[in-house]
Amino acid sequence: MKQAKWIWYNGDFELYHSMKLHTRREEFGCEYPPFWAMSAPYPNASFAKAYHSDEEDTVRVVTPHKAYVTIDGARYPVNTDITVPAGDHAVRVCMLATEGFPCIYINSKYLVTDETWLTDHLAGKGIPVGCDPAYTEPTDDPRIFKFAYSRMDAVKVQKTPEGTLYDFGKETYAVLHIENAQPDSAVRITYGESREEALDYPEALIRETVTGQSSYTLAPRAFRFVCVKAEQTAPLSVYAEYEYLPLTDRGAFTCNRKNVNKIWEICAYTLHLNSREFFLDGIKRDRWCWSGDAYQSYKANNYLFFDPAITKRTIVALLGKPPYEQHINTINDYSMYLIIGAYEYYFATGDAQFIRIYYDRLKALYDFINGRLNEAGYVWGMPGDWVFIDWSDMDKGGALCAEQILLWQCRNAMASLSELVGLDGDAYRKAADKLKRNIMRDFWREDRGGFVDCYTTGKESITRHANIFAIMYDFVSEKRARKIVRCVLENDEITHITTPYFEFFELCALCKMGKLRYAQKKIESYWGGMVKLGATSIWEEYIPEHTGIQHYGMYGMKYGCSLCHAWGGGPIYLLGRYCLGVYPTSVGYETFSVEPNRGLYSSIDGKVPLPEGGEVSVQMDATSCTVTATRKGGTLILGGKCYEIPENTPLTVTL
Amino acid sequence: MKQAKWIWYNGDFELYHSMKLHTRREEFGCEYPPFWAMSAPYPNASFAKAYHSDEEDTVRVVTPHKAYVTIDGARYPVNTDITVPAGDHAVRVCMLATEGFPCIYINSKYLVTDETWLTDHLAGKGIPVGCDPAYTEPTDDPRIFKFAYSRMDAVKVQKTPEGTLYDFGKETYAVLHIENAQPDSAVRITYGESREEALDYPEALIRETVTGQSSYTLAPRAFRFVCVKAEQTAPLSVYAEYEYLPLTDRGAFTCNRKNVNKIWEICAYTLHLNSREFFLDGIKRDRWCWSGDAYQSYKANNYLFFDPAITKRTIVALLGKPPYEQHINTINDYSMYLIIGAYEYYFATGDAQFIRIYYDRLKALYDFINGRLNEAGYVWGMPGDWVFIDWSDMDKGGALCAEQILLWQCRNAMASLSELVGLDGDAYRKAADKLKRNIMRDFWREDRGGFVDCYTTGKESITRHANIFAIMYDFVSEKRARKIVRCVLENDEITHITTPYFEFFELCALCKMGKLRYAQKKIESYWGGMVKLGATSIWEEYIPEHTGIQHYGMYGMKYGCSLCHAWGGGPIYLLGRYCLGVYPTSVGYETFSVEPNRGLYSSIDGKVPLPEGGEVSVQMDATSCTVTATRKGGTLILGGKCYEIPENTPLTVTL
Repeated sequence: MKQAKWIWYNGDFELYHSMKLHTRREEFGCEYPPFWAMSAPYPNASFAKAYHSDEEDTVRVVTPHKAYVTIDGARYPVNTDITVPAGDHAVRVCMLATEGFPCIYINSKYLVTDETWLTDHLAGKGIPVGCDPAYTEPTDDPRIFKFAYSRMDAVKVQKTPEGTLYDFGKETYAVLHIENAQPDSAVRITYGESREEALDYPEALIRETVTGQSSYTLAPRAFRFVCVKAEQTAPLSVYAEYEYLPLTDRGAFTCNRKNVNKIWEICAYTLHLNSREFFLDGIKRDRWCWSGDAYQSYKANNYLFFDPAITKRTIVALLGKPPYEQHINTINDYSMYLIIGAYEYYFATGDAQFIRIYYDRLKALYDFINGRLNEAGYVWGMPGDWVFIDWSDMDKGGALCAEQILLWQCRNAMASLSELVGLDGDAYRKAADKLKRNIMRDFWREDRGGFVDCYTTGKESITRHANIFAIMYDFVSEKRARKIVRCVLENDEITHITTPYFEFFELCALCKMGKLRYAQKKIESYWGGMVKLGATSIWEEYIPEHTGIQHYGMYGMKYGCSLCHAWGGGPIYLLGRYCLGVYPTSVGYETFSVEPNRGLYSSIDGKVPLPEGGEVSVQMDATSCTVTATRKGGTLILGGKCYEIPENTPLTVTL
Repeated sequence: MKQAKWIWYNGDFELYHSMKLHTRREEFGCEYPPFWAMSAPYPNASFAKAYHSDEEDTVRVVTPHKAYVTIDGARYPVNTDITVPAGDHAVRVCMLATEGFPCIYINSKYLVTDETWLTDHLAGKGIPVGCDPAYTEPTDDPRIFKFAYSRMDAVKVQKTPEGTLYDFGKETYAVLHIENAQPDSAVRITYGESREEALDYPEALIRETVTGQSSYTLAPRAFRFVCVKAEQTAPLSVYAEYEYLPLTDRGAFTCNRKNVNKIWEICAYTLHLNSREFFLDGIKRDRWCWSGDAYQSYKANNYLFFDPAITKRTIVALLGKPPYEQHINTINDYSMYLIIGAYEYYFATGDAQFIRIYYDRLKALYDFINGRLNEAGYVWGMPGDWVFIDWSDMDKGGALCAEQILLWQCRNAMASLSELVGLDGDAYRKAADKLKRNIMRDFWREDRGGFVDCYTTGKESITRHANIFAIMYDFVSEKRARKIVRCVLENDEITHITTPYFEFFELCALCKMGKLRYAQKKIESYWGGMVKLGATSIWEEYIPEHTGIQHYGMYGMKYGCSLCHAWGGGPIYLLGRYCLGVYPTSVGYETFSVEPNRGLYSSIDGKVPLPEGGEVSVQMDATSCTVTATRKGGTLILGGKCYEIPENTPLTVTL
């Protein structure tokens, strides 16, 4: 018997939950929806399938929306039992949803709704339906995103002049329950990612005052500390329910350095907290889905959960629907990360169906990007565009080199994606090649060993960003890449990266160029710096020179810095990719390499998940290296030699 | 003090209510949403205004959605009083609505929401907001369309074996109230536009069985008769509440023939019943909004209510939003009527702002039409297209002449509309001219005095449709038009039009060619035929040869014929336009002609509304003609002479 699932037009679930998610940010008692345009689900859909029944069967189409079903051409109501005789049948449900999104559920003996159905939005081509393994019961409501919950009690409770302070021991995202309240007494709740924030009602970002009930179940929010001030004298009962997506850590990493292991655990926890309907940037702030931040989470995901579903949901939510009238999150670079990210998702997972379903939207987004180039064929800032790259002092007086390298990689991605769906990718490749020649002519400075930000202003300013991309995306030859490392990345006269966001890219580029030890040091100094200060999740920004609550300030707000930010999960990727050294060399890990590198550590032990389950585990110390893979196709590269990794049998190489 | 109104992104109100309206069709106990794709409102919007306050003021943004307001750059919550000092202010509300559509209401001393605000959907250009004079209170909910209600009691109640039959005396659209019910007893309600339908539960289109309550308020539905069968012995109390849009009859028509006056009244009532959120095709069936049907209602509207709001709402609802992936209602001709209808709306009203706001969508729809032409540059049937024109036996083996004439008129309309918004219309005009040359070359048969349906099949079949359009839209010279009348329209060998839908177009063409008497005869035979049979509203179709309940059957259903169909309102237009003879000769009736023609009637007396209020009244008999107009610009054309019509002073010409 097949498992019946709720089905919907592919992508509508994501668009709907993205809308809902993006209504939930709050700051200083103020709702704070995003400043960019979101896409709503299609109001209409049809769902169709041909099937055979061996005997008379009863079919009931369950849906909350206005709809009818045709079976073999005859029209029937939904939410009613229909007797269907034995034989071959064609069933089609047609609906219009004025809220939520079209969805149906059928669970009869011979007909169940599942991924084998086709859908359209009463226009456009038929595509496979969307569904989610969490929605299998007729009573499920796909408009409610399913999280898991577990009770948390404060590990420490303290009376303060501001109220009772509850410390839950670590950063969390939870529903707060308040009981034994007197309905005629107001209760003021101040949330804090830090103790200081929870005790500072006027400056705390998240706070609420409730009254009129004897118990309260508050909206899920990010916090470690909660300060509850009530007028009543009888004590309140306060506890929390952790709300989370139950993702499994399929990746692992330990080494001989305990502090590094702790950092890895905290990075993993940080990524867990930010992995919800979609990859968030931070759970307190912004609680939004940003394409640049998400792009880094896709990479970390592949080395921790390797959960394709969350990456897909995030890409679909960010992608929205044509017509494209603005860049993703309004940011030029973020549109390009989305296309590159979709390609990288495909390369890591081999999930061609996802690309086939969303190719038209990716293409429409690419056309939008490509339709806004300047006369020289470069990405630039049109009205409404935000040319971001990084919070950094950079010459933005003209078309930026970093944007052009992203465009080049975008074209490479589009070439591969279009070939995947059976189209000719040649035009994209030619356009990429032409762009590369122009970039080299306009932005490359051979004498200085780097790319300038901008070639039209005369400033000839070199920053790290474009140079990092040039290495990350194999835009330059290895020889030039080495030159870039020497002249730019290892040159202290070139302004250092100040954001952990771009620092991740820099570490990727350096690790790629063999500078793992630099990254390892950075993990202990930067990530370790926060951990030493008691961080239970990785912060949005850490400035070692800051002291006390200076660490919590950002964007002009006393507690503006997110203390649980997804991009802090970078070490998960860096250690899996460059220390354990596992990476795919063809689509979906059909072939893959394992190039372990202990760097500064005397021993390492970990595993990297494979797309369809299974994993590659790596143990290495000074004397030997053992690799075990649950699938064939792997090659161990060690000491300049290559070893075929057998399936499910440990391969040990003595060093 | 200005009147505060709820405001929204222009068009969202219409798209939302169109979705809701289109969920309400039901047939044989089955919900029946349309088979075409609808557009949802934008989930995001911003609303902005700069204003000045002379003193400190309290501003509260009322909205059911997640939002914030910035006043002079500072962010505040909505639904909360904000104190704003005296001075110049910039206010902007940013929101995200996961259901319904973004909307706000402010009613403070110095700042009210009204049509002076600008909006965008967080992308795209700023446009004036949408609003409606019915939504002026903070407690109003724009998600609920405001109708007027008045109680109706049955004029006759009769016990029958099927239950108690209530006759409300005439076709209506009403909420049925049932009181004094026993909750443990089921009540079965059968609605009928005819007595026979109400007594024929198995075949009636609209029916419902309710139970569990002591009183019921049912969904508004179309009926004249209701049969209520209850298991209980105690009598039920049954009454109805007429649900309607309180539009005023600003046009009028009477003549010496009482039956014609009665027909006119019934036509007007038919149009009233079908004039709701939008122009419906019929109130029982389909209860949908079809562009072809609506196009005829726009014309009748101009001679009865001259209510610009309902025509605009209908155009906006039908137009939906880009990207266009299918024709309006999936029908090629219906896309073109929409563009032509938008132009005709502008020509009649002079409402340039409407065009400026919707030009981009109209252009996108035109581009969709134009992007699907065949190699010869003709409209044809691509996959998913429905080349309709009429339910008629016609050679549809290739590109149809009637479709090409609509395309030609569409291009003329686009030329004028694009010039109105400050663009060059020349390309449209040239394309129209080229198309005309090709149509004349390919479809015109000089020897037969008409256009063939299709030139590629060799059938050389001539039907009336293209020839009617050629006259209606001035596609041919007057000389050729006369030839068409002689050779096609007055030629009984050419298959007669069988649908009242296209018959309206034929009567327009004939009246235009001076054949008013033909139309007058038709009004008495066709419309009068229904009235003689007791019709209280005009039917979808009337076949004189039918008897008894044959009249009520259509589309294979015993009561499938709609007995209240908007296109039955055609005489309102025909008598106003060609008998009273009033029509605009420049945009917005800045100049207009009055060319009264009694035809078969010995005397006529009526009035035609003018766009911004006021009217033209015409009285004429054998001896004299008196015309009064509330504005200047009019010319009376009578007996080959022209007379300037003074403002507000009767002009009498003795014949």
